[in-house]
Amino acid sequence: MKNIRQLTPREIRNLIRKGKWDKPTPALAMGFAQANLVILPQRYAFDFLLFCQRNPKPCPLLEVLEPGQYRTRSLAPDADIRTDIPRYNVYRRGKLEAAEKDIRSLWQDDFVTFLLGCSFSFEEALIRAKVPVRHIEEGRNVPMHITNIACKSAGVFHGPMVVSMRPLLPGKVIRAVQITSRYASVHGAPVHVGDPSAIGIKNLGKPDFGDAVTIHKGEVPVFWACGVTPQAVVMEAKPDLCITHAPGHMFISDILNEELATL
Amino acid sequence: MKNIRQLTPREIRNLIRKGKWDKPTPALAMGFAQANLVILPQRYAFDFLLFCQRNPKPCPLLEVLEPGQYRTRSLAPDADIRTDIPRYNVYRRGKLEAAEKDIRSLWQDDFVTFLLGCSFSFEEALIRAKVPVRHIEEGRNVPMHITNIACKSAGVFHGPMVVSMRPLLPGKVIRAVQITSRYASVHGAPVHVGDPSAIGIKNLGKPDFGDAVTIHKGEVPVFWACGVTPQAVVMEAKPDLCITHAPGHMFISDILNEELATL
Repeated sequence: MKNIRQLTPREIRNLIRKGKWDKPTPALAMGFAQANLVILPQRYAFDFLLFCQRNPKPCPLLEVLEPGQYRTRSLAPDADIRTDIPRYNVYRRGKLEAAEKDIRSLWQDDFVTFLLGCSFSFEEALIRAKVPVRHIEEGRNVPMHITNIACKSAGVFHGPMVVSMRPLLPGKVIRAVQITSRYASVHGAPVHVGDPSAIGIKNLGKPDFGDAVTIHKGEVPVFWACGVTPQAVVMEAKPDLCITHAPGHMFISDILNEELATL
Repeated sequence: MKNIRQLTPREIRNLIRKGKWDKPTPALAMGFAQANLVILPQRYAFDFLLFCQRNPKPCPLLEVLEPGQYRTRSLAPDADIRTDIPRYNVYRRGKLEAAEKDIRSLWQDDFVTFLLGCSFSFEEALIRAKVPVRHIEEGRNVPMHITNIACKSAGVFHGPMVVSMRPLLPGKVIRAVQITSRYASVHGAPVHVGDPSAIGIKNLGKPDFGDAVTIHKGEVPVFWACGVTPQAVVMEAKPDLCITHAPGHMFISDILNEELATL
């Protein structure tokens, strides 16, 4: 087997489909967009689609499949959403019930699949422009915090926005706003810069998810809407059944990050 | 009564609500975004929302209301969608059945309201940057053509993209791409530049909707996805019932066009 880092998205999806890769996906298929997964029964689908439409920063939709469909169309022409993700979480009434490597046996004809943009895409663009991404430098998971910013509710879905934090020097803050503004479909521009308490964060040293990172003298914390938000909101709404990717175990698409960029 | 052109969006909506304005809305409340309206029974709502998600250039969603809701939240805090549009078209099974000034008597608890961006917003930005908009110069309606570009289908909704055409000199084409790229939520960047036959348009002199305009020597036709697309697609799908604004009789929001602009 070639080093997996040299494989194309299609080759990696094939390995995953055959059960030969069930580990996290960061640094795989560099240059290609990865996606968060949320699968819900049809009775929740309109409300969740509406929630995403109302909250595009935490919930940027890349592709939505029709009820019962498990093959992607625009993100990849041949992918099977039931097998092509390294690890799935199965939630019943908001509680994690099982982790699976394949969900073919769980599939229902009324399942609606949502694929949402992931910050890996804009982090790659930041690094290319020499904007440091601290948690990558330090080999950690990005620090994530629950804020007091309320998402706009839709039907049964509501809850606070979760943000990820990256510390930057002021000059780099400006560059980071410019760069991430180009990537609206993967969370886009930051939602806050500076004082964490202004958005309800008490302690930057104790993130609600992920790991704390070093903040150097003179650096300002910069906060982006985070892909954990839709999952947190879905768990809060406690649908009978919901299947997501396991954290860090993303869907790898055929779409280049650059294809997602605007001006 | 003050000149209506000097009134605020709220004041104009109040006039419309009282039945004192039932004419088209271009040039009213300059600077504020106007919106296309589509109202469908809930059984069509997921498919139509999905259609808009898949076709953001012709169908840029500004706001979607939950089933039965007729008060806007983000576009204006106090607007009543049943009364605040100067003129409505009521379609049954795809056929225009009636024109109304008020739809309170038709309202159903399962109605879902979609408000979509309108090119008036980017035309204002073009004119501010001295990019000429020919149909405005000539006092006509914008020329619109049915293309051979297929929209991505969603459930019962499918059909060709309708485009609007504005002729420009090459240097202005570049500027127009830059400017309209900033306004993704009101159709965004053009979908085609140059040869009309490449997108299935046979005769620029005979638009399918609106009026023909003069194309001066050296000018190139530039084509933008058009807000007529969602209405054409809805009519093609022949839902039992659909209510839209009458062409040119838009919803006037409290949102500034500049608030819709990105970088």
